[in-house]
Amino acid sequence: MPKLWKGRFAKGVDPRMEAFGASIHFDRTLWEEDIAGSLAHAGMLAAAGLISKRDLAAIRRGLARIGRRIREGTFRFRPEDEDIHMAIEAALTAEIGDPARRLHTARSRNDQVATDLRLWTRRRLDALDGRVADLQRALVALASGETATILPGYTHLQRAQPVSLAQHLLAYVEMLDRDRGRLRDARARANRLPLGACALAGTTLPIDRERVRRALGFDALCDNSMDAVADRDFVVETLAALALLAVHLSRFAEDVILWASSEWALLRLDDAWSTGSSIMPQKRNPDLLELTRGKSGRMLGHLVAMLTVLKGLPLTYNRDLQEDKEPLFDAARTAEETLVCLAAFVPTMRFDRTRARTMLQGGFLEATVMAETLVLRGLPFRKAHEVAGELVRLAETRGVRLVDLDLPTLRSVCPLFPADIRARLDPEQAPRSYRSAGNAGPAEAARAVRRWERRLAGPKRAR
Amino acid sequence: MPKLWKGRFAKGVDPRMEAFGASIHFDRTLWEEDIAGSLAHAGMLAAAGLISKRDLAAIRRGLARIGRRIREGTFRFRPEDEDIHMAIEAALTAEIGDPARRLHTARSRNDQVATDLRLWTRRRLDALDGRVADLQRALVALASGETATILPGYTHLQRAQPVSLAQHLLAYVEMLDRDRGRLRDARARANRLPLGACALAGTTLPIDRERVRRALGFDALCDNSMDAVADRDFVVETLAALALLAVHLSRFAEDVILWASSEWALLRLDDAWSTGSSIMPQKRNPDLLELTRGKSGRMLGHLVAMLTVLKGLPLTYNRDLQEDKEPLFDAARTAEETLVCLAAFVPTMRFDRTRARTMLQGGFLEATVMAETLVLRGLPFRKAHEVAGELVRLAETRGVRLVDLDLPTLRSVCPLFPADIRARLDPEQAPRSYRSAGNAGPAEAARAVRRWERRLAGPKRAR
Amino acid sequence: MPKLWKGRFAKGVDPRMEAFGASIHFDRTLWEEDIAGSLAHAGMLAAAGLISKRDLAAIRRGLARIGRRIREGTFRFRPEDEDIHMAIEAALTAEIGDPARRLHTARSRNDQVATDLRLWTRRRLDALDGRVADLQRALVALASGETATILPGYTHLQRAQPVSLAQHLLAYVEMLDRDRGRLRDARARANRLPLGACALAGTTLPIDRERVRRALGFDALCDNSMDAVADRDFVVETLAALALLAVHLSRFAEDVILWASSEWALLRLDDAWSTGSSIMPQKRNPDLLELTRGKSGRMLGHLVAMLTVLKGLPLTYNRDLQEDKEPLFDAARTAEETLVCLAAFVPTMRFDRTRARTMLQGGFLEATVMAETLVLRGLPFRKAHEVAGELVRLAETRGVRLVDLDLPTLRSVCPLFPADIRARLDPEQAPRSYRSAGNAGPAEAARAVRRWERRLAGPKRAR
Amino acid sequence: MPKLWKGRFAKGVDPRMEAFGASIHFDRTLWEEDIAGSLAHAGMLAAAGLISKRDLAAIRRGLARIGRRIREGTFRFRPEDEDIHMAIEAALTAEIGDPARRLHTARSRNDQVATDLRLWTRRRLDALDGRVADLQRALVALASGETATILPGYTHLQRAQPVSLAQHLLAYVEMLDRDRGRLRDARARANRLPLGACALAGTTLPIDRERVRRALGFDALCDNSMDAVADRDFVVETLAALALLAVHLSRFAEDVILWASSEWALLRLDDAWSTGSSIMPQKRNPDLLELTRGKSGRMLGHLVAMLTVLKGLPLTYNRDLQEDKEPLFDAARTAEETLVCLAAFVPTMRFDRTRARTMLQGGFLEATVMAETLVLRGLPFRKAHEVAGELVRLAETRGVRLVDLDLPTLRSVCPLFPADIRARLDPEQAPRSYRSAGNAGPAEAARAVRRWERRLAGPKRAR
Repeated sequence: MPKLWKGRFAKGVDPRMEAFGASIHFDRTLWEEDIAGSLAHAGMLAAAGLISKRDLAAIRRGLARIGRRIREGTFRFRPEDEDIHMAIEAALTAEIGDPARRLHTARSRNDQVATDLRLWTRRRLDALDGRVADLQRALVALASGETATILPGYTHLQRAQPVSLAQHLLAYVEMLDRDRGRLRDARARANRLPLGACALAGTTLPIDRERVRRALGFDALCDNSMDAVADRDFVVETLAALALLAVHLSRFAEDVILWASSEWALLRLDDAWSTGSSIMPQKRNPDLLELTRGKSGRMLGHLVAMLTVLKGLPLTYNRDLQEDKEPLFDAARTAEETLVCLAAFVPTMRFDRTRARTMLQGGFLEATVMAETLVLRGLPFRKAHEVAGELVRLAETRGVRLVDLDLPTLRSVCPLFPADIRARLDPEQAPRSYRSAGNAGPAEAARAVRRWERRLAGPKRAR
Repeated sequence: MPKLWKGRFAKGVDPRMEAFGASIHFDRTLWEEDIAGSLAHAGMLAAAGLISKRDLAAIRRGLARIGRRIREGTFRFRPEDEDIHMAIEAALTAEIGDPARRLHTARSRNDQVATDLRLWTRRRLDALDGRVADLQRALVALASGETATILPGYTHLQRAQPVSLAQHLLAYVEMLDRDRGRLRDARARANRLPLGACALAGTTLPIDRERVRRALGFDALCDNSMDAVADRDFVVETLAALALLAVHLSRFAEDVILWASSEWALLRLDDAWSTGSSIMPQKRNPDLLELTRGKSGRMLGHLVAMLTVLKGLPLTYNRDLQEDKEPLFDAARTAEETLVCLAAFVPTMRFDRTRARTMLQGGFLEATVMAETLVLRGLPFRKAHEVAGELVRLAETRGVRLVDLDLPTLRSVCPLFPADIRARLDPEQAPRSYRSAGNAGPAEAARAVRRWERRLAGPKRAR
Repeated sequence: MPKLWKGRFAKGVDPRMEAFGASIHFDRTLWEEDIAGSLAHAGMLAAAGLISKRDLAAIRRGLARIGRRIREGTFRFRPEDEDIHMAIEAALTAEIGDPARRLHTARSRNDQVATDLRLWTRRRLDALDGRVADLQRALVALASGETATILPGYTHLQRAQPVSLAQHLLAYVEMLDRDRGRLRDARARANRLPLGACALAGTTLPIDRERVRRALGFDALCDNSMDAVADRDFVVETLAALALLAVHLSRFAEDVILWASSEWALLRLDDAWSTGSSIMPQKRNPDLLELTRGKSGRMLGHLVAMLTVLKGLPLTYNRDLQEDKEPLFDAARTAEETLVCLAAFVPTMRFDRTRARTMLQGGFLEATVMAETLVLRGLPFRKAHEVAGELVRLAETRGVRLVDLDLPTLRSVCPLFPADIRARLDPEQAPRSYRSAGNAGPAEAARAVRRWERRLAGPKRAR
Repeated sequence: MPKLWKGRFAKGVDPRMEAFGASIHFDRTLWEEDIAGSLAHAGMLAAAGLISKRDLAAIRRGLARIGRRIREGTFRFRPEDEDIHMAIEAALTAEIGDPARRLHTARSRNDQVATDLRLWTRRRLDALDGRVADLQRALVALASGETATILPGYTHLQRAQPVSLAQHLLAYVEMLDRDRGRLRDARARANRLPLGACALAGTTLPIDRERVRRALGFDALCDNSMDAVADRDFVVETLAALALLAVHLSRFAEDVILWASSEWALLRLDDAWSTGSSIMPQKRNPDLLELTRGKSGRMLGHLVAMLTVLKGLPLTYNRDLQEDKEPLFDAARTAEETLVCLAAFVPTMRFDRTRARTMLQGGFLEATVMAETLVLRGLPFRKAHEVAGELVRLAETRGVRLVDLDLPTLRSVCPLFPADIRARLDPEQAPRSYRSAGNAGPAEAARAVRRWERRLAGPKRAR
C-alpha cells in the first residue's frame, strides 16, 4: 500500500527512516483493540450518515475476516505497513476496496492509537488485578496454616520480636491490596475515550462521540481534543503502579531468598521451583525469586523511560509518543508472568517449624516483653527499657537466654519483676499476649486470615 | 541526653556514625506532626490507664511549651539529638522529668516516624491540591478571554489545524485535573494510622489504636503491624503523582518558552516574570519556565531514589527508610513553589492576537477542512486526503495559500468542490465549523471555560 | 537435553518456571561470542592436557558446524534449552557426544556468560564508535559549507548574539567526541577476561587463563574470581555512556525540530526524511528527530534498570544478573540505528540562508558588541551594559533596530561612542570581529572545520 | 545591588520569581572557585590591557578580603544577590567601586558558572579518589589478616564453594578500583576551560584564554564557545561514576548486614558503629550499612535528575542548567561521608572464625571439588557433575556430609574415585588446591593482598 500521505511528496521515504519509524513489530499486539475501535467507529459513521449501511456491512465483514486471519496466524504483517493501523487498513482495502477508504473519515492515527492503547491498558489492568488477587489468595492460604508458627520478626535484619509467620505473609497481602487500589485508580482515569479528537482539533463532520464511547465501554469522553491526543498519563500511571508492585515483589523475593539460605534454613524450595547449577551439583537456587527481584529494575526503568519521553514535549501529538508502547507492553507482560509464577510457587512453600522454634531461642527476642512487664508494674518505659538492656548485657556475658536468668538476679537489677516473669518471657508464648489491634500474634493473625478470606472470596475472575 | 538505647552498650557511638545517621537537620520539619502524634498517644495512654491523668497533664503542658518555642525559633536543635522524635522527647524530659519517660510506652520510633510522615504527607497533599487548583483557575481565567483567539495548533511542532487558544490552555487544565485525582487517591491510601504497631509486632500493653486514629483524623488503621512499619507506599505514590505533575508543567513551560521566542513572537513576557542577561542587554529570558522545565528532572530523580531505596528490602523496618524524607520534602516544596509562581505568572500572559492571525496564513492549516468538505460530498476520506495533498503541493509550488487557488483550479483536480469552498477555507473561520464534542473551536472552548469555572468555583481552600 | 543439574533433583522444574527463566529468546544474540569463547577454552583445555587433541578436534568441528547452521538460519533454538550456552552445548553433544561433555570442564555458566557478554560489548563499542564518527563526519561536512552563514545564536531560546551556523553544528561534534571518549574508556575497562573464575572460586584443575586471554584478545585477566562473576560494571558503564549520547542526540533533535518549524523556517526537511499525516495533507513532520528525542527516554530507562538490578546484591553471582542483557542489547541497537539514520539525514539538511539573514535583523543581537565597543573606549563593562540596555529600550519603543539609531542619539546616552559605531553593529558583520579562541565567528568556524576534518580523516572503519 | 540587567526593564522582578530563581543558598559552596576564577580572569584582563594594573591590584585586594570574610563566616549572603557570582561582585563593588565594574569584561555568568563548577568538580573528584583509596586500604588491611579464614562463598545466596574471606573482601577492592578509574576519566574530560566563551559566542575583546587556562590548571580549552556554555557532561559523568560507586557500596553493605545477622553470625558489630533500639533493648543494628545501602537510591536519583534536565534542551545555555548543582553537591558530599565512615568502620570488623569453620560443614561445598577429582581421572565433566549430584542427594537423604560417605559407597556410584578422595573433600582444605589464576583460595588471596598493598602504598593524600 502506498503511504497514506504520499499526495504531496515528490519522492519516497528513505528505507532506513521507514525501518526506524516502524512500530508494526510491537504494536501489532494492539490488533484486537484496533479492530474493536474501527467497528465502533464505523457503526457511528453509518449512524451519522457519513458512510452507507452497505459500506458498514462491508467493513464489518472485512474486519471480521482480518481478525480471524490474525488470530489464526495467517495474516502477513509487512514492515512497510509501518504500524498496526495501516496494516489492517491496507488489508481491509485489499479485501473490500472503497468502503475501507471511508473508514478513516473523522479519525486520525493520533486519536486512533490513543484509543487502542487505552483499550489495551484497560484490559491488561483488569487481568493484572486478577493475577494480584491470585497471589493474595495463595498467600492467605499459606498463612492460614501458619498462624501458630512463631518465628523471629526482624527490623534492621536483626531479630527483634517473635511474630506469627502468618502475619509476616499477610504483610505482603496488604501491600498487594494497595497495588490493586492503584491499578483500579489507574483504570478509572484511563477509561475515557479520545476517539473523535481526530488529529488534534476535532472535525467539521457530524460525528457522535457518545455513541462510540458507549460501544467501547468507556466511562467518559476526553473532553479536550488537544489533550486527548497529547495525553499519556494512563501509561505513566500504569507503569508507576507496576513499578511499585514490582518493588513489593522484590521485597517478598528477598525474604524468601533469605529463608531459603542455609543460614536461615527456614524454607526448603520445592524442586519444581528451584534450579541447580551447571558446575556445583549440590545447589538448589531460588532463581524464581532472584529473577523477580531483578525484574524490579526493568519495571523502574520503564517508568523512567516514559516520564523522560514526556518531559518538555510541547502540545499536542509528537512522534516521541510512539515510545510509549514497548515499556508498557513489557511491563504488563513481566508483571503478569511474575505474578503467575509466584502464585504457583507460594503453595509449594514448606516451612521448617522446628527450625523456627530454634531460632526463637537466640537474639533476646523476649526483651521487649520484659520491659513492658515492668511498665505494667509502673516503671516508666524509658527506665524499663534500660533495665531490660542491662539484663540483656548480663545474659550475653553469661552466654544464656533472658529466660535463664533466675528471679533473684532479675530483681537485683529491678525489684519490680513479678514472680511469674520467666513464664511470660518464653518467646514462643509471648505473641499470645500481644493485645494491640493488628499485632503480629497468632490470634490476630487468625482473625486477619479470616478477614482476607472473606474479602478475596467470590467467583474468581475468568482468566 | 544519653542515647535511649545505651543500656546494653559498652562504649559510645563513633561521632562520625552519629553525624552520618542524624536526620534532625531535615526531619525537624515534622515537629508539628510529632507533637500532634504524641498528644494523641498520651491521651490514649491515660485513657487506657497506662499513665496517670497527672502525667498526661504534664505531657500536654510540656509539649505545648516546646511547640511554642519551636514556632518562635527559640528551641535549640542539637545534632546529638539524632532526630526530631528524640529532640522533642529530650526537651520534654528536661521540662517535666519522669512523665516524659512514660510517653514512649507502647510506641517505637518505627511507628512514630511513620505516623508523623503520614500526617505531614496528608497535609502537604491537601495544600498541593489547593495550589494545583489555583493554577487551574488562573488558566481558566486566561482562557476565558481567549476563546475567540484562533492560532495554529501543532502536531510534531508543525502547524496542523487552527484552534482556539483557550482550548490549548484548557488542555493543561485537564492534565492538572488528573494530577489532582492522583493526589486525592494518594491521600486516601496514605490516611491510615500506623501508630500502635510499635517496633513491628504490636504490644502486650492494652492500648486503644482506634482512639488515636480518631484523634488524628485517620480513616482507618494499618491492619498489619509488620506492614505498618515497613510501608512507604504513600511516599512513592506521592512522589509519582508529583513527578507526573512536574512533567505536565514542563510541557506547559516548553509551550510558553516557544511562544515567547522571537520566532513565535506570540507572547511578551511581563517584566516581573522574566529576567535579563549579565552580558546581553537586550535579553528577556523566560527563566521561570526554564526552571519549571528543569525541575521535572529533580522530581523524577526523587521518585527513582525512593523506589530504589525500597527495592529488595526485607521486612520489616530497615534504616534505609530514613532516606524517604529528603526526596519527599524537596518534591513537595518544589511542586508548591513552582505552582505558586506559575499561578501568579499566568495572569500576566499577554498574547499578540495580530501575530496569531498572521500565523494562520502560513502552513496550509485549511487542508483538513478542505478534505472534509469533499468527504461531505461523498468522496472517500483517503481520496479526499490525496486531493488536498495534491492541492497543497500545487499551492506550495506557486507560493500561495490554498484559499488563493480559484475554483476552476480546484475543480480541475476534483470536480466535487462546492462553489463556496473558498469561504470555508479561511483558517480563522474554520474552527467555527468544528462539530465534534470537545473540539478545539471557539464555541466548544467557551462551553469548556464555563464548565471549568463551575467546577473550580466554591470557597477557595484556606492556604 | 535434560537439565544439566538434574542429578540431585527428584522432580522436574515447573514449565512456568522454565519459561520465566529462559533467556534463549534474547541471549542467542551472543552465539558468535559463545562459540569463540568455547573454542578458546577448548584449545586451552587441550594444551593443559585436560582434554585430548582428538576431543579438541571434534569440538572444533562440531562448533564450526553449529556456527554455520546458526548463521544460515537452520539452527533450531528451543525454549527448553534455556539459554544460548545450553543450546549450543546440547547441539554439540548431539553432534559429537562425549567430547562435548568435557567442554564445560573448569567452566561455569557464571564465567562463561560474563565472557560472552564482555566480548559482545567490546564488539558493539567498536561499532558504535564508528557510527558516532560517521555522524561527526556528516556534521563537519555540513558545517564546512556553512561557516559563513550567520544566524542568531540562542540562550534561553532567546536570540542572543549572531553566530556562524558551522559553530552551532560543530558544538554537536564536540559532544560526540566526548561520547567517543566515554565509549573508549568503557571498552578499556570491559576488556578483561573473567573465564577461569568458574562458578566463583576458580578451580583445582590446572587451567591456563593467560592462554585464553591471548586467544580472545583481552587486555588482562579479571584478577579476583569472586568479582569476576559478580561484576557488571561494564554493562552499567556502557549504558551510562549511551544514555548521555542519547541525550546529546535529543538536544540536536530539538534544534532541528525547531529549525524545521514554520516559525523558524530555517530548514526544509528532505522528503526522504520526513513523513506526512494520515489526516492533514499539508504536513511534513520531522519524525526521525522526534523519535531520536523520544528514544533518549528508553536509554535512560535502561541505565536505571541495570543500576537498580545491582543495588543491594550480595556477592557473588545472583540470577538477577540475567536482567543485564535486554537493556544492553536494546540500548546498543537503538543507538546504532539512530546514529545510522542521523548520519544519512544530516547531508540532506538544506538551510534557508535568506531566512537566516532576515532573522538577524530582529532581537537586538548587536547589543553586546555595542557594549564591548564602549568597554574598548574605557567604560567599565557594567556601565557599558547599562548604556546598551537603555538604548535597546529606546529602540524597542521606537520599533527600530539598534543600528537605526543615529549617532547623536547614541551619544546623548553615552558620549564615548565612536563615529563608526553603526558599521560595527551590523549583526551579519559582527561575528567577523570576534577575537577569542573558540569563538562563534566564521573564521574560527573555518579553522574548527579544518581541525575536525584532520582528526576524523583516515580510513573509514569497515561497517 | 540593583539587578545587573535592570537597564532595559520598566519594572522589577516579582519577589516570588526572585526567590524561585535564587541559587545563592546552595551555590555559595562555589565561593572559592568563583574567587579563583575571577583572579585568573582579572590577571588576564590586565595583561591584555583591558583593565589597568591599578584596577587589578584593587580587585585582588578586594577579593582577598571577601574570601577572608567568607572563610571566617562574617560575609553576609543575601537572597537578593541571586547567586554566588553576583554576591561576590556586589561585595567587591561595595569594597572597591569602579574596578569591580570592569571585572565582568569579556565574561558572562554562562561561562563563569561553568568554570566554577568544573573547578569544584575537579577538586571533589580528587578528594573522592582519596577517600575511595582509603577504603581500599582499610579493606586490604582487613583482608591481610583473613587470608587463611575459609568460609562459604555464595552464588544465589546459597553456599557454593569454600573461599578465603580475604578474596571476598578484595572483590570489593577490585570494584572500587574500577570506580577510581571512572573518577579519573571523568576528571580528565572535566578539566577543560570554558571561560572566554562569554555568553555563547566569545567576544570582540582581545582576551587570552590560554593564559587563564594555565593560571587555573586546566588541561585544555573548551574549543567551541557554544558547546562550552551548554555542556554539562562533566556533571553527568561524575554522577554516573558516583551512582555506580554507591551501588558497589550497597552490595558491600548487604554482605555486612547478612554477616551481622543472627543467622550468619559471622560478624559482631562494634559498639561504636552500631545502634540500639528505642524499644527493643537487645538490638545491635547495622545502621551504617543500611544507610549506605539506602543512599544508593539518592545517588541514582541524582543521575536521573541531571540526565532528565538535559534531555531535549536546545543550544546553548538554558536556565534549566541551574538544576545541575544540587544533585552534584549532594552526591559528592554523600559519597564522601559514606566513604569516610566505611573506611573507619572496616578496621573494627571482627569475624568469628569458629563460626566460619562451622558453616563450612553444611551445604555440600565440597561437591565441585569431588566432581573435579573425577575429571582428573578422565570422566567427562558433565558426567562427573551427575555423579556428584547423585551423591549429594544420597548424603542429604542420610543427613550426612559428603565427606562422611565411605569409599565403597562412593565407588558404588562411580568406580573412578581415588582412595584419598575423602581427604581432598574437607572444605577447609579444598581451597588450598585451587590452581587457577585469581582463584578464591588462601595462597592467591595472600598474593593479591601483597599486590594491592604495593599498589595502594605511597604517601597518603593529604585530607
